[in-house]
Amino acid sequence: MIILGIDTAIRCTGYGVIQLDKMSDIKVLDCGIIKNTQKMKHSECLRRISGGIKELVDHFKPNSASIEDAFYGKNIKTSMILSMARGAAIAAVSEYKLPVFTYSPRSAKKAIVGTGKGSKAQIALMLANLLGINTIDIPLDSTDALALAICHGQNKIRPELSTFLTNEI
Amino acid sequence: MIILGIDTAIRCTGYGVIQLDKMSDIKVLDCGIIKNTQKMKHSECLRRISGGIKELVDHFKPNSASIEDAFYGKNIKTSMILSMARGAAIAAVSEYKLPVFTYSPRSAKKAIVGTGKGSKAQIALMLANLLGINTIDIPLDSTDALALAICHGQNKIRPELSTFLTNEI
Repeated sequence: MIILGIDTAIRCTGYGVIQLDKMSDIKVLDCGIIKNTQKMKHSECLRRISGGIKELVDHFKPNSASIEDAFYGKNIKTSMILSMARGAAIAAVSEYKLPVFTYSPRSAKKAIVGTGKGSKAQIALMLANLLGINTIDIPLDSTDALALAICHGQNKIRPELSTFLTNEI
Repeated sequence: MIILGIDTAIRCTGYGVIQLDKMSDIKVLDCGIIKNTQKMKHSECLRRISGGIKELVDHFKPNSASIEDAFYGKNIKTSMILSMARGAAIAAVSEYKLPVFTYSPRSAKKAIVGTGKGSKAQIALMLANLLGINTIDIPLDSTDALALAICHGQNKIRPELSTFLTNEI
């Protein structure tokens, strides 16, 4: 089973592609970020997010995608820009008819560190340990995306043990 | 000059394609809606919005797209879902490197009826008059999209007369 985790943001979208058959055997196929500069227009950012995700799906042929729940930030303008980025990302994976599942940021962190809190650096350390790779190979902005992918993997493989609420969006 | 106007919404996205050289000679090449049922998942709705818009761009080869400004509704959840639809639509036209311009709903209405207010039926009537077609040929949910396209046309052709604020997004 191959899962694409996506942590969308207009200027920096993290992604993580994992392959797993059982929870004790998770492989990272790829992880990284789609970086957009501050100067880029939103339309260009969205084009790059959509294009980048489609390249990943083309290459790795994941079975499903896992992204963050929409959460309602204090700043409505920021929340709406984030929602645009989510819309572009979801439309991109849906072009391939991939099912898309959502998890709260808290659930994703809990899947890795056991609690709903933790810095990106802590999560990178736990991920490196879990996946048997070096933290240096995990860009900090891709940790949440990897966590989202693993969280969904846990839900699929051991649903009886998983307490993570999910929705197919 | 060919302009694609898009009035996005998750369940019903209106579109209007116009061709114009001067303001007195506007032709409607197409107008209609991309309709999604209430039962469809958001991912499927976004896929259909993106796919529908790409078909229009493929077919009519517009020079630019005109869409509504992001506006901050009272209901943040609704605003965020609308933003997802906008994100999918903007990413779709940006794939073709089309410039995307935004106008307030008020500006778009003003371009047609002279004031910032007016029901869809009133706008359809004014549009039919302006374009020399029957109101029956204008689906009500595409009136705002046509108004957005015409508003952008006015801005491009007679910028000295236009008072509509625009942003290239």
